[in-house]
Amino acid sequence: MAVNFKPRKVEFHTRSLANGLQVIAECHPEAYSVALGLFVGVGSRDEPREWSGISHFLEHMAFKGNERYSAEELNAAFERIGAFHNAMTDEECTNYHLAVLPEYWPRALELLGELVRPSLDPRQFELERQVILEEIRMDEDSPPFGGEDLCRTLYFGEHPLGQSILGTKETISALQPAMMRQYWESRYGPDTSVLVATGRVDFAQLVEKAEEVFGQWKPCGYRRQITPVQPQDRFSVMCKSEAQQEYVIHLTPAPAGLRDWVAVWLLTAIIGGHEGGRMFWEFVEPGLVETLDIEFEEYQGSAIFEVSMVCQPEKAQENLDRLFEFYRRLASQPIEPQELEWAKNKVSSGLVLASERPISRLAVIGHDWLLEKRYYSVGELLQLVAEVRPERIMELLEEYPLDRGTVVCVGPVESLSPPFEVPAEGCVLQG
Amino acid sequence: MAVNFKPRKVEFHTRSLANGLQVIAECHPEAYSVALGLFVGVGSRDEPREWSGISHFLEHMAFKGNERYSAEELNAAFERIGAFHNAMTDEECTNYHLAVLPEYWPRALELLGELVRPSLDPRQFELERQVILEEIRMDEDSPPFGGEDLCRTLYFGEHPLGQSILGTKETISALQPAMMRQYWESRYGPDTSVLVATGRVDFAQLVEKAEEVFGQWKPCGYRRQITPVQPQDRFSVMCKSEAQQEYVIHLTPAPAGLRDWVAVWLLTAIIGGHEGGRMFWEFVEPGLVETLDIEFEEYQGSAIFEVSMVCQPEKAQENLDRLFEFYRRLASQPIEPQELEWAKNKVSSGLVLASERPISRLAVIGHDWLLEKRYYSVGELLQLVAEVRPERIMELLEEYPLDRGTVVCVGPVESLSPPFEVPAEGCVLQG
Repeated sequence: MAVNFKPRKVEFHTRSLANGLQVIAECHPEAYSVALGLFVGVGSRDEPREWSGISHFLEHMAFKGNERYSAEELNAAFERIGAFHNAMTDEECTNYHLAVLPEYWPRALELLGELVRPSLDPRQFELERQVILEEIRMDEDSPPFGGEDLCRTLYFGEHPLGQSILGTKETISALQPAMMRQYWESRYGPDTSVLVATGRVDFAQLVEKAEEVFGQWKPCGYRRQITPVQPQDRFSVMCKSEAQQEYVIHLTPAPAGLRDWVAVWLLTAIIGGHEGGRMFWEFVEPGLVETLDIEFEEYQGSAIFEVSMVCQPEKAQENLDRLFEFYRRLASQPIEPQELEWAKNKVSSGLVLASERPISRLAVIGHDWLLEKRYYSVGELLQLVAEVRPERIMELLEEYPLDRGTVVCVGPVESLSPPFEVPAEGCVLQG
Repeated sequence: MAVNFKPRKVEFHTRSLANGLQVIAECHPEAYSVALGLFVGVGSRDEPREWSGISHFLEHMAFKGNERYSAEELNAAFERIGAFHNAMTDEECTNYHLAVLPEYWPRALELLGELVRPSLDPRQFELERQVILEEIRMDEDSPPFGGEDLCRTLYFGEHPLGQSILGTKETISALQPAMMRQYWESRYGPDTSVLVATGRVDFAQLVEKAEEVFGQWKPCGYRRQITPVQPQDRFSVMCKSEAQQEYVIHLTPAPAGLRDWVAVWLLTAIIGGHEGGRMFWEFVEPGLVETLDIEFEEYQGSAIFEVSMVCQPEKAQENLDRLFEFYRRLASQPIEPQELEWAKNKVSSGLVLASERPISRLAVIGHDWLLEKRYYSVGELLQLVAEVRPERIMELLEEYPLDRGTVVCVGPVESLSPPFEVPAEGCVLQG
């Protein structure tokens, strides 16, 4: 594919402040908006097991006021400038981000600065604890009814990547402000964070303002321990009698830390799911399943493929068996040149379309810089995609067979047979 | 607010083909992509009651092949050009849309043309029937567990706007290809459709290509009957014992067909929800509810506000009572100038941010032209927003009090008292 992509005048800049805070920006003078984000390299994998969920709880508390502003004043200040702000916590990162009209970015940056020194007021802490417990209940009310957390726990075993982002009712109920204060002091600092801007912003002004807002922030000295994952082969059936569909989640090892990681994007596009690819043609298009998808998730030091399937309960066993038979065929089916070309078209369009908004670029750039210390422009990514050869994808398929890992089935079916070899102690019945 | 918005060189064009198909485009030579959509003015409100769900089912069948292409070939053709394509059916419109890199739009337009003459192959029809039945089951598995459809049915009574988009298990099971053929022939035509393009596309070329692809399409002669809605005051509790949270949906009349409809956007921004506004401050911020939001939905000839709330079951009655007490206070609380200014900032930012991608503009432009025959550039919309005065919003609040309509509660709570006056026959217990 000759991608006829003419990027606008986009410039990438980086600078470190004296306290170690990295400031990075993809400046685009023609954009309509500015997106700003503070990406803190702290997430559920950094939590002591008995404090599970504390990173996400802390993210909520960031909006609940500090010494200068009450929660009301802080929220009102965001409202005043018409900012669309939000925050997200995952396994490795807590990010606070917003999109504003260009004239408001300096004020928006000041407000980001207010978020990282929460007062953790005990009354607010109790209120927010209830909010988190409600989030957990809503999550359990929604398909796959907690099945994703269970699957991670089984797959990662004792490894901290298996811990839930939301935490459990038990850990959340036991947390106290003093613990969070200690966690915050030991994890949040300019040395664990990156300030990111995209869109219509001037880099020199950004650095100057960042120095003013974050210059006094003290390093925390935290360094994440990266320990190897021991992926577990497990099979579990969680009976949820009132559900009408069967929900299947499957985690399996994927390549991590590749120099040509875009080859894995192409691999998942070829395997496919709801919008094309082999699983689409073999399962979705003929109506065997309602949905079937594969995603690639990379963490520091490890990576997984996550396959999710939804189907009629009475077809669950047949589909499971067929899916694993499909996996086993992958390494012996050559990648057709046309198949790879289509996958490249798909991935390339996706990259270009996602680059149209500063707020979309922010997420990619911030995450990549924080965790991998890498930056690629959209043009460079398109080039990397164009260079991947079919043999490389075959190599990856041989090295990372999908027919192992952990499978969790949630739905009305009471019993299913594992579609792959699982040690006897690996079959778990939940209910 | 002085919105410092410098729109790029965007031009709006319209043309009618000889067969009546309207072609409209917002051309933007600097965009990265092209978005195309065929908006057909047919949805659930156009369905005979016993064929409920047929519009959405037909949308699915559009991708299942025609005389020229099999389903496989059609999907492969979209895949080949890396198109992100999708389709959506609502009460009044079925739209087929896609985003592609600029060089592929002519081919993409040809493919849109293939969608509107499905062969409705009986074998594919049976397969797709199962897919739709699975969608219905997945919908019932997810919060609010069918509560939204129930609320619409109660609120709209016999009016066709009360019909479910997905249909029911009974109607979907009874549909036959011949019925769909008849429905399609009587509803789909150039006279009920609009072809819409946004992004980096040349209008003269677009019209030429549209003539080639759609020029032979015959008018169907359909005209929607717009009958007045008789909003029903109803209160219903649907007990779902295994749910952990209580889900509340409330529909109430809203102003329709206003010349200054943006005043209603500001009204909902002031009432607010998850990102600010009065309900945020009174309910969300102090942790009384998990979520609370208000949305404005306009149809031809009528409109509704839809309020949704999620909270702990034990607080459901208290929150319901408090919500209606809040509604009753609205008309007597003046709109503060500052409150209106913030709402304007919010709505204006939202407009600008949504205009950054051709695919986002497509949805707005297509819907507005098809249903209201109106077009406003982002700059014009910002102007309309700036002009709204607080007195106008007070007028609307007085004219459209929120403390009536239909309320449906779904969750573990078995019994709740209506927080407003409902005729005895209006209280319905489901479950």
